[in-house]
Amino acid sequence: MQNGEATTIVVMGASGDLMSRKLLPALFNLWLKGRMPDRFNIVGMSRSSFTDVEFRERMWPGVAGSSDAAAQRPHRWREFAARLRYCQGDLGSAEDMQRLRRSLEELEGGAERANRLFFLSIAPTLYGQAVAGLGSSGLASEGYGWRRVVIEKPFGWDLDSARELNREVHAVFDESQIYRIDHYLGKETVQNLLVFRFANAIFEPIWNRNFVDNVQITVAEKVGLGDRAGYYDGAGVVRDMIQNHLLQVLSIVAMEPPVSMDAESLRNKKAEVLQAVRRWTPSEAAIHAARGQYRGYRGEPGVPDGSTTSTYAALRLHVDNWRWQGVPFYLRSGKALAEKVSEVVIEFRRPPHHLFADGISRELNPNMLSILIEPDEGVHLDFEVKVPDRGMDMEPMSMEFHYESAFDGQTIPEAYQRLLQDALDGDASLFIRSDQIEEAWSIVDPLIAAWEDPYPDSPLHPYEPGSHGPEAADLLLAADGRKWLTAVNGVNSRR
Amino acid sequence: MQNGEATTIVVMGASGDLMSRKLLPALFNLWLKGRMPDRFNIVGMSRSSFTDVEFRERMWPGVAGSSDAAAQRPHRWREFAARLRYCQGDLGSAEDMQRLRRSLEELEGGAERANRLFFLSIAPTLYGQAVAGLGSSGLASEGYGWRRVVIEKPFGWDLDSARELNREVHAVFDESQIYRIDHYLGKETVQNLLVFRFANAIFEPIWNRNFVDNVQITVAEKVGLGDRAGYYDGAGVVRDMIQNHLLQVLSIVAMEPPVSMDAESLRNKKAEVLQAVRRWTPSEAAIHAARGQYRGYRGEPGVPDGSTTSTYAALRLHVDNWRWQGVPFYLRSGKALAEKVSEVVIEFRRPPHHLFADGISRELNPNMLSILIEPDEGVHLDFEVKVPDRGMDMEPMSMEFHYESAFDGQTIPEAYQRLLQDALDGDASLFIRSDQIEEAWSIVDPLIAAWEDPYPDSPLHPYEPGSHGPEAADLLLAADGRKWLTAVNGVNSRR
Repeated sequence: MQNGEATTIVVMGASGDLMSRKLLPALFNLWLKGRMPDRFNIVGMSRSSFTDVEFRERMWPGVAGSSDAAAQRPHRWREFAARLRYCQGDLGSAEDMQRLRRSLEELEGGAERANRLFFLSIAPTLYGQAVAGLGSSGLASEGYGWRRVVIEKPFGWDLDSARELNREVHAVFDESQIYRIDHYLGKETVQNLLVFRFANAIFEPIWNRNFVDNVQITVAEKVGLGDRAGYYDGAGVVRDMIQNHLLQVLSIVAMEPPVSMDAESLRNKKAEVLQAVRRWTPSEAAIHAARGQYRGYRGEPGVPDGSTTSTYAALRLHVDNWRWQGVPFYLRSGKALAEKVSEVVIEFRRPPHHLFADGISRELNPNMLSILIEPDEGVHLDFEVKVPDRGMDMEPMSMEFHYESAFDGQTIPEAYQRLLQDALDGDASLFIRSDQIEEAWSIVDPLIAAWEDPYPDSPLHPYEPGSHGPEAADLLLAADGRKWLTAVNGVNSRR
Repeated sequence: MQNGEATTIVVMGASGDLMSRKLLPALFNLWLKGRMPDRFNIVGMSRSSFTDVEFRERMWPGVAGSSDAAAQRPHRWREFAARLRYCQGDLGSAEDMQRLRRSLEELEGGAERANRLFFLSIAPTLYGQAVAGLGSSGLASEGYGWRRVVIEKPFGWDLDSARELNREVHAVFDESQIYRIDHYLGKETVQNLLVFRFANAIFEPIWNRNFVDNVQITVAEKVGLGDRAGYYDGAGVVRDMIQNHLLQVLSIVAMEPPVSMDAESLRNKKAEVLQAVRRWTPSEAAIHAARGQYRGYRGEPGVPDGSTTSTYAALRLHVDNWRWQGVPFYLRSGKALAEKVSEVVIEFRRPPHHLFADGISRELNPNMLSILIEPDEGVHLDFEVKVPDRGMDMEPMSMEFHYESAFDGQTIPEAYQRLLQDALDGDASLFIRSDQIEEAWSIVDPLIAAWEDPYPDSPLHPYEPGSHGPEAADLLLAADGRKWLTAVNGVNSRR
């Protein structure tokens, strides 16, 4: 198939960290595994001036620091890096884009078919300009090979800007050519959620309002702001994490079974979940969410005095459909928390009748299924077990599965490796479609509006770095008679 | 409550192994844990002549060999053993029984209430005589304390003899005073089956014909006949294991939820399962079962030449009720097999639709829940997991729970400890009621008739000691398109 076919991966904004620390290590790994096309090149573009050799040298420290494979096999890296070219240029300059086009045509020389994957690793404000440039320069025209564009998050800043950006991108590319990345969907455990639900027959029958009491999705970061003030202080946790990662995970947890794994079937079902999420008015948003800012945030470099950016958010969502009516979905995410952990917890309803009540005063614990996305990827199922030698007394214990011990020695690949492979293969299943992006924005827009109001109804709660976030997040669940649950470190802390 | 109250445990047939290796260690453990009545004595009776001191000395090697607690704390054992008396006597002698009565009354001297637990550790053929003797001597009369009788298996030899024995026992004791032991029900993991099913909300919804494909119950022994020829060669595996242990485990696996754990509620629901088991004619039994005899059995000491006793049986049963219609229950048990293992495996139906079919040629594995009774007590749940870095390819993996690691350092008590405690406490939940005994015999009677026919329809298959039993057992399942499954040693071998 790849005879007479050339493929070029063009990274716009190639001088950034993403290129050296994520994209090149991922492409290098794919190449080591023999999964790259026979004939391919990688072209980096940015405004700085480098020769090819200088560019390769500039990339090396980041690659070596992120990729054990490269650090341990520098001679293989050098072999791979011979495919890496550099093209200096400004996205806004028609002349520079023409020069890029000529470079590509030269690299593609003689190929019957020439495919181009454009990866936008640039400031989100430049997406529109970049896509327009690809269009007007003719770089995006299909005819003798495919053209695809990979766009990093954030895609838009709110619903209106996301719609506008979709319009701009659609003016040049068909939706089928657009690969909007949410790197969370490239994670093995997130994909395993699909397998867990739909390759097993025993979970689906209880995966609904009759048996599930509530669903909790947590993406907690231990790190603080770092050097991201420029982007983050304007964005806040809702744009940075909730609108994309958490709502995507929610979509997979709550979706109906698709007909197949093909991109349209899967994304139709995911989009339907977002459509079903109950919309708030800004004043309702204040009731169903709590926010916080870690102490010391305002002193971070680049953060303006008196910044009211939320670095923590907890939300109560409802999915208004047949399956989930009445089951709250609690989402939370924040920076500078006690630990780095991402997980989904399904808390089931209690057994309808406590037939062991005699002599046991406490209520039975509900079953709890925890899907750990990171750091300790795996599945825990908490269930009641008889305590040996204590009559019919019982305790909750975990049945456990851990990726690391199960697939001993097998490295779980980085999300970008999977996503770049899928983009090269033309499989858009794990990428975000335009309607998903817009639905997600329309869910969080009222919350953003409420919190960015100059006289907001809901307070911004300070919390200590290294804590579990503001107490307001606990109160949000306490109002429903519930608690945040977590299965971190193999122990169900039920905090 | 125990003020002015004396309790005596009377073991008839006290010179046997059961007394020194099981009953005394169990009672000693209960005493160490402070669970024995304040004022109690143990009286051993048999035909040999011993003084109390001689009897205690005679018991010691068996006790020390079976009970770490006694071996490590001999001074505590001596303190306990001071409560151990011996009464020489013949069950059939009215005079001896009167002497036993006088001994008991002497030990009970001054107590307002005196309770007596009679434990029949004698040849099954003597049960009737022993009970009659307890009746005619007045030993069994209640009035100033309770009287209970514990009867070991086998209870009867077939349905008719079990009915006859029930009549004889009921002539002296009310059903509520009768504790028929199946030591399997004293095992922690068997009891945990009840907790597993009814203290958890997520298994019950899928515990039926809509989701379960088949149920497999295995009780495999590694040992051969040993010195049990006298009993075993006449009995065979169906009387020795299937009629009691395996049908009791089946009852617990298949029962409807009882109203409470009290003895009558629980045993009503268990009895209903046995009532629902489809009865065979002897010629049907030959079709739904396979049998074997390990090579070398006929050379074991005490086994007659040309013995046709089955040392292995595999059965296909159907439970004709709303929940289980169409779900086969496969039972197997045997001696001299590859390993000692008892477990229940629930094989669920496959997912109704294989949405990952693209690029994966194999069928999905059905989910499989394994409840390991021994030796490695625990629960395994096999489910399909995404293999890292192989697209959407998947493999079956186990979520696991193990008693030993979960309850670290806590010794799982021997079955007799729990059962003796329950009998002393008057809790008959884990003992077999007369109707359960008779139902169980009526299930296996046609099989026994078929196999003991002088010109049987079904062959007795030889199998190698240390094997997995005769091939005929595999063919029994193969005829249904199924296989024996096992989760021994944490690995689902799906052999």
